[in-house]
Amino acid sequence: MKNYNELKNIFKRISDLEHISAITFWDAACMMPSGGGDARAEAMATLKALQHSMLTDPKIDELIDKATSELLEDDWDTANLQKMQRLYFNATCLPQNLVEAKAKASMQSEQAWRILRKDNNWHEFLPLLENTFSLVKKAAVIHAEKRNMSTYDVLLDEYSPDITQTLIDPIFNKLKDFLPNFLDKVLEAQTSIKLFDIQGSYPISKQKALGLTLMQTIGFDFNHGRLDISHHPFCGGVPQDVRVTTRYNENEFITSAMAICHETGHAMYEQGLPIKWIDQPVGAPLGMSIHESQSLLVEMQACRSREFMDFLSQHVMATFGTQKEFTSENLYNLYTHVKRDYIRVDADEVTYPLHIILRYEIEKALFNDEIEIKDLPEIWDQKMQQYLGLSTKNNYKDGVMQDVHWPSGIFGYFPAYSLGALVAAQLFNKAKKSHPNILTNLVHGDFTVLINWLREKIHKNASKLTFHSLIQNATGEELNPDYFIKHLEERYI
Amino acid sequence: MKNYNELKNIFKRISDLEHISAITFWDAACMMPSGGGDARAEAMATLKALQHSMLTDPKIDELIDKATSELLEDDWDTANLQKMQRLYFNATCLPQNLVEAKAKASMQSEQAWRILRKDNNWHEFLPLLENTFSLVKKAAVIHAEKRNMSTYDVLLDEYSPDITQTLIDPIFNKLKDFLPNFLDKVLEAQTSIKLFDIQGSYPISKQKALGLTLMQTIGFDFNHGRLDISHHPFCGGVPQDVRVTTRYNENEFITSAMAICHETGHAMYEQGLPIKWIDQPVGAPLGMSIHESQSLLVEMQACRSREFMDFLSQHVMATFGTQKEFTSENLYNLYTHVKRDYIRVDADEVTYPLHIILRYEIEKALFNDEIEIKDLPEIWDQKMQQYLGLSTKNNYKDGVMQDVHWPSGIFGYFPAYSLGALVAAQLFNKAKKSHPNILTNLVHGDFTVLINWLREKIHKNASKLTFHSLIQNATGEELNPDYFIKHLEERYI
Repeated sequence: MKNYNELKNIFKRISDLEHISAITFWDAACMMPSGGGDARAEAMATLKALQHSMLTDPKIDELIDKATSELLEDDWDTANLQKMQRLYFNATCLPQNLVEAKAKASMQSEQAWRILRKDNNWHEFLPLLENTFSLVKKAAVIHAEKRNMSTYDVLLDEYSPDITQTLIDPIFNKLKDFLPNFLDKVLEAQTSIKLFDIQGSYPISKQKALGLTLMQTIGFDFNHGRLDISHHPFCGGVPQDVRVTTRYNENEFITSAMAICHETGHAMYEQGLPIKWIDQPVGAPLGMSIHESQSLLVEMQACRSREFMDFLSQHVMATFGTQKEFTSENLYNLYTHVKRDYIRVDADEVTYPLHIILRYEIEKALFNDEIEIKDLPEIWDQKMQQYLGLSTKNNYKDGVMQDVHWPSGIFGYFPAYSLGALVAAQLFNKAKKSHPNILTNLVHGDFTVLINWLREKIHKNASKLTFHSLIQNATGEELNPDYFIKHLEERYI
Repeated sequence: MKNYNELKNIFKRISDLEHISAITFWDAACMMPSGGGDARAEAMATLKALQHSMLTDPKIDELIDKATSELLEDDWDTANLQKMQRLYFNATCLPQNLVEAKAKASMQSEQAWRILRKDNNWHEFLPLLENTFSLVKKAAVIHAEKRNMSTYDVLLDEYSPDITQTLIDPIFNKLKDFLPNFLDKVLEAQTSIKLFDIQGSYPISKQKALGLTLMQTIGFDFNHGRLDISHHPFCGGVPQDVRVTTRYNENEFITSAMAICHETGHAMYEQGLPIKWIDQPVGAPLGMSIHESQSLLVEMQACRSREFMDFLSQHVMATFGTQKEFTSENLYNLYTHVKRDYIRVDADEVTYPLHIILRYEIEKALFNDEIEIKDLPEIWDQKMQQYLGLSTKNNYKDGVMQDVHWPSGIFGYFPAYSLGALVAAQLFNKAKKSHPNILTNLVHGDFTVLINWLREKIHKNASKLTFHSLIQNATGEELNPDYFIKHLEERYI
């Protein structure tokens, strides 16, 4: 195992740099004053380049060659060596200057987006996004040729290993068939529900206190993480120091409360990764579809359940006082309220997949040279009208400029959200079958059985299994969209 | 300039890593949950090792050799090349195993100190400090032989370039002659002053608001920096994103307010460095004596002046309400109150140099083999009795164990504090002569003329000049302790 152990040392050092990189990324989103952005972009690009050059050292190739004939200890080691091989390949298939240019362009377009979105300024944002996209595409094309894959599949695989258009297309088509009619029925059914809207003055300090209670309830370990504010909620940092972020609206608390539950779902996955493998490739989360399944399981399946609303209602009243709007029933109605709207991150779980399908189709078309970045506002508007009956004409900030992903150079990520929702429904269904008390426990805010089941079936496996084996082992079958459809039917009709 | 330009690129990348390192250091001090500490220490060690290996690449030596015969553009480039040469020499003159042993020993003795100081446990601390000292000395001896300097001068030069014992000795002797008698007179004069002590409940949020006002008043650019909380106040980050920190005591606000003014003085220097050279060795601050001169000029000369107290009093009352303790006169009396005490960091500006002279004499004697580490408690006690009339017998925690410097392997740094105080007095004297309105402007919190003068005379020079030329150019003469003595006489008698 001499060569394999030397590889482990190298990848440990690469993981150290990823630690540094994750913390400085979090800092840029939560702490950094805007005037620090340019210097930070350069510093981050240098760090990324260095990580890249460590990962592309030809010595790794030699060591992998030799390690392949060594007798490894167990299947963790075997999987780890495979992950190393994949990382080395992914890293070496691109020239260094392209990697640097892509990182710098992404940082610049993301920083600009933070200002230009507020101003609805597509005109100034366009060239920056074009630049970022062209570099992402250039990289994906090189990669795709070497792996003999389609360009867009390379990007999908980057965020969700083993996920391809061939897997997604029939699933998304099934949802596209089902959802529009179903949506009509839900909207019709919900007309009879009397909603008491929550609008008032809810100080950030109290919303944060409620958020911290929710994180504690779900099982977040504050000795290894914290909660802060960023423009767009995310879960960052490293498994030993997980940085959950959210944003607050002082006029209502229901958005921030549920965003925190969502990010805490991500955080539980990170904090549940096996400590023994934490600094090795196989110790990383499997990919974004599984990551999203963990956040969506906690948010959509558990925290938006009728059962959990009893617990939430009690804590909302303890925080903000007793009001008729804060009953368990009204909170449930608010949290399962469905409507056609513009913003993906605010969308309910019925319309959400339509937002994703729209982005998936646009990304496919972009990478297949069917459309260009400058066409996006028009195409966005067309598809929004088609799927959700809404126009985004001249409304860039609620249309094509709403998400942080593209300005950050992230293409091919969006499908993970909806695949995650499907996985979450399938996992939760299986967990409830194995432990019928899971839902009733939520009435008292008891997540122990659920989180232990997830630790066992998902978290502690890290990246040892493929996407397909992980789902198969946990649920006894392949990814099956019927559980998600069943979940929607049970909850909404 | 081909080779020189290649060097600039390499040092730019080293500076990028320093940026990342500074931000993660700040994060560890201000944000990181304690459970993240072990992983962070490993990640930082990997980053430091990488910076070190970039700086010790033999290619730098070759490039410097070639660049020396190139025609450089101006004296900035010439100074920059010299700084590169010095950095490379410092990084390569020691065997790698000695560098590592020194880093490890320092880390161990510092960590132990954090616990043992609280327990007043010199006995267990002694062997750790001996080990750290012996490695620091071993390194300094090698370094000194190669540069044909005295061992202790090597250490002084490391923190304050161009500062030697030959410069310090006559200055400190003059202060030693002057201060003890002067201190008696001050204490006698202050017996007639009626002090109204500030003790009450001062919420951190209000103290922070006051601190932000003070920073804004001095001229801190919040687009390139921020204020946070850490265990010990410091000024970190990078010039484009300066991270000022402080700590708050909810029972009084005067310590945090003045600590913020002090750190803002450091921050103004950082924010005033020339942007064109910011990523090059010559663009760095000149050294710790000059850095301290900037914080002490802002704190001691400007913010503790009778004039500034009018402004401060007004804002204290606006923040905490009108009280007799908050009058301009009482604040001035509190901020210029002198007493004999044990702790350097809490000392007033009259007794402070005596704390430094004590440490300087001990360090000199240690590096000249006149005393050993085990003798320190006795010598400390003798000198404290001699200079300040206080005994530290068996009181290690308020004596020899009070500072973080020696346990961290930092010897030769202390003189910078008092040299900084002297430079501050000399600069402020000259600034007032050039602009007689500087002091009266402070009544209204107007720092513009003062800061512009510092920008011009100090900040924008970065490391281009030697310590001596910088002082000469700014004030028209060599470093002269008489200005500090005159300042004390004017303020305290």
